[in-house]
Amino acid sequence: MFNKVTIIGAGLIGGSMALALREKGFAKSIVGVGRSNGSIGRAKELGLIDEVLPLEEAVKHSDFIYIAIPVDATVTVTKQVMDLVTDKQIVTDAGSTKFALCSAMKDHPMRNRFVASHPMWGTEYSGPEAAVRGAFAGRACVICEKEKSDAAAVDTVEELYKTLGMNIVYMDAYNHDIHAAYVSHISHITSFALANTVLEKEREEDTIFELAGGGFESTVRLAKSNPAMWAAIFMQNKENVLDVLNEHISQLRKFKASLEKENMAYLTELMTHANKITRILK
Amino acid sequence: MFNKVTIIGAGLIGGSMALALREKGFAKSIVGVGRSNGSIGRAKELGLIDEVLPLEEAVKHSDFIYIAIPVDATVTVTKQVMDLVTDKQIVTDAGSTKFALCSAMKDHPMRNRFVASHPMWGTEYSGPEAAVRGAFAGRACVICEKEKSDAAAVDTVEELYKTLGMNIVYMDAYNHDIHAAYVSHISHITSFALANTVLEKEREEDTIFELAGGGFESTVRLAKSNPAMWAAIFMQNKENVLDVLNEHISQLRKFKASLEKENMAYLTELMTHANKITRILK
Repeated sequence: MFNKVTIIGAGLIGGSMALALREKGFAKSIVGVGRSNGSIGRAKELGLIDEVLPLEEAVKHSDFIYIAIPVDATVTVTKQVMDLVTDKQIVTDAGSTKFALCSAMKDHPMRNRFVASHPMWGTEYSGPEAAVRGAFAGRACVICEKEKSDAAAVDTVEELYKTLGMNIVYMDAYNHDIHAAYVSHISHITSFALANTVLEKEREEDTIFELAGGGFESTVRLAKSNPAMWAAIFMQNKENVLDVLNEHISQLRKFKASLEKENMAYLTELMTHANKITRILK
Repeated sequence: MFNKVTIIGAGLIGGSMALALREKGFAKSIVGVGRSNGSIGRAKELGLIDEVLPLEEAVKHSDFIYIAIPVDATVTVTKQVMDLVTDKQIVTDAGSTKFALCSAMKDHPMRNRFVASHPMWGTEYSGPEAAVRGAFAGRACVICEKEKSDAAAVDTVEELYKTLGMNIVYMDAYNHDIHAAYVSHISHITSFALANTVLEKEREEDTIFELAGGGFESTVRLAKSNPAMWAAIFMQNKENVLDVLNEHISQLRKFKASLEKENMAYLTELMTHANKITRILK
């Protein structure tokens, strides 16, 4: 149980974390910190946080600081926080990329107060209104470079995530970003690109609306995601995302070639191979 | 209410239709016809159909014949059925492509007994075990070339689909296949290709299993679909599928180019455009 928690960025992740911290009895009071008054003010109106304070003041009085902001701001803000903390405090972030952040924090004198984490949960919605109860459960939470963090701090953060129903997975930051490109970032790109494909080819929007069934909706769902947030993630994980994107384009070209050549055997083989994903998914 | 209904192919669609026909009081008894004894025998064991008969015998005694088999068999089987029917019977099919079938039936002397339909519902599962109650509801059902069918037969078929909660949409077969490529077939290809991408890049299957979250699962869900069934659909709708697949590859290349050039503005613009899909989806 923390006496006071600061959540920096009370959007989908930060807001859902605020709800969870309170529900599970991890936080007596929650302070919100935001760039503008807009989102963070709304988070207060929604009751996600108890008060809004400037970063410095909020951090000073908190046992636990949770950073859940777009990854292009995370390095700067985490450094600001780390420059303020004492060895009684714990700092955690929820960013979808870990290498840039962990590299930037590597030599910080308070590095051991920081636990780098990525709770792999999200929806296609963003902002404090998107925060939901019961988030995170049943998903993986990656803890990166735990050996650089204070053992007791890691225990506390793990206990928190486990209480929310998450499975802890350990990885170094470099490998985290590779795997995140495979199992998360590429899905978003294909979904965004599929939406653009259909919007480009299907000029009759009413027809999409009338015909689109469950298959289309689930494949294109992530195309509703926040562009600025994802642009930052793709850019920060550029090499890995490009690597997997190139592979994806070449996989699509195999479908194209098999269709052009009317090679039913190859086309069927491609899909039979894809079916293997069934045994990997839960 | 039909006295006797024949369902040819009691898999996901045929089996779900059997359940629906019975539940809504549209069928007193249901005969199943299948290529081998395997699937259709299983459909009987599951209680989806009352008896199994050879095609000719089944059709002879039925008021309504519902054809729900892979599209590479539909033309041949529909012709067999149409050669048997009288002007007291109604024949409908559920195929995902309509142009080849409607072209083949165009000059059949009994053409007006046939109502070409495509109920746009499905799941990634197949076979009689995949049949579910409450299927079809809330989705579109395309009726093609209704002017070539007997008006009373169309009314009956529409009444059936409406009772199942479907919205009727009219289209010629040529346009149906174009739209189906946009809102259904391409989703399946991207999903199959995404599964292959991740299986290729991510050699550590345990890692996919541990990390894959909701976004990945929904994008890749259709990759569990039946290869033979979809190979037939893609091949029969080859031109349209290739057209939209080419567009999709070029949309992915835009993401690639914007990342390579670190053009954040363009990357964000691509995703902001994709967000427009939000207002089109229900």
